[in-house]
Amino acid sequence: MELSEAIRTQRAIRHFSDRPVSDETVRTLMEAATSAPNAGNRQQWRFLVVRDREAKRRFGDWYLRAWTDTVSRIGDEANAQPYRSGGVLGEQMENIPVLVLACIAAGSAYGTGNLDLRGASIYPAVQNLMLTARSLGLGTVITTMHTQFESEVKQLLGIPDEFDTAALIPVGYPARGVEFGDVSRGPLDDVVFQDRWANPLD
Amino acid sequence: MELSEAIRTQRAIRHFSDRPVSDETVRTLMEAATSAPNAGNRQQWRFLVVRDREAKRRFGDWYLRAWTDTVSRIGDEANAQPYRSGGVLGEQMENIPVLVLACIAAGSAYGTGNLDLRGASIYPAVQNLMLTARSLGLGTVITTMHTQFESEVKQLLGIPDEFDTAALIPVGYPARGVEFGDVSRGPLDDVVFQDRWANPLD
Repeated sequence: MELSEAIRTQRAIRHFSDRPVSDETVRTLMEAATSAPNAGNRQQWRFLVVRDREAKRRFGDWYLRAWTDTVSRIGDEANAQPYRSGGVLGEQMENIPVLVLACIAAGSAYGTGNLDLRGASIYPAVQNLMLTARSLGLGTVITTMHTQFESEVKQLLGIPDEFDTAALIPVGYPARGVEFGDVSRGPLDDVVFQDRWANPLD
Repeated sequence: MELSEAIRTQRAIRHFSDRPVSDETVRTLMEAATSAPNAGNRQQWRFLVVRDREAKRRFGDWYLRAWTDTVSRIGDEANAQPYRSGGVLGEQMENIPVLVLACIAAGSAYGTGNLDLRGASIYPAVQNLMLTARSLGLGTVITTMHTQFESEVKQLLGIPDEFDTAALIPVGYPARGVEFGDVSRGPLDDVVFQDRWANPLD
């Protein structure tokens, strides 16, 4: 698939069929993920491919608990709207063929900004994985709800202290009737400036 | 360009020609960036397209100072090796056609992990930008050195307090003799596990 088409149609998919995802396909996704840019090419990432049903069930429980808490905190309907499918995602988590847990090592960033710069060495890999999934007809959605149970997640999967989890990505073929489609975004000129904040792009 | 080719050949480019990058091309890159997944589709990102030479010169100065400091802290030759081109990048920064500064709002993450989850709402956009640049024959490299001068950067460009910078991405056509090429990564089985840490992939 053309890059531009994958990017344009990479909608979040939260309803999956039970059609299996082959080991070969998983390897293709992982090759794409590990081709991503990362600080100093030190490749301080790790990816856990979770197929075990009991582990997936626990991620579903964690997701549901965190999602319920988040939606209740957001409160108003408009802001909670993007999360309305979250309940289904949590409930169905154990039936999703593959969950990928992306992890990043402590001390893998250069710089001292307000943002944790380790994200620059793991989320580009996550995006490569998700775009490649899209190109193969597989749906994904990037989730971080499980981080509210970070220590339990680490214990379940044996993740050492010197790594943190960055994202959980469910991977599967979309459920019947669920379509990929163009992403929906606001006007470019609201978020892209030239040379100075709020100055319009040429 | 096929997605898989863009991913496979997205090498960091640190030597640029002075061939101009058109406004239309910049808009194409920005459309790709803003198509990326982000928390709740709230699009709490902003992108500053820097073409002003004096601003680019200051980014070059900051880069050089932070780079010199980083390389001296890393110390040993092997670990500093990926950074050997950094000096040239800093010195040439003012001549690079376009610098893109990616920013993310405070309070745009859901979850409470050890990692700042705002990265999940900005680095996928950065990766879309960089892959699309690659597909158009443009080189890029993701840098974070400027974050050591976060407050000066914000002052220079008028960035409000409620946003932080996440990455500075130089964009230009590669210098003569600089080629895109396959990325170099370690074995997949060193970094991808199944169901439990250190357990090999099927």
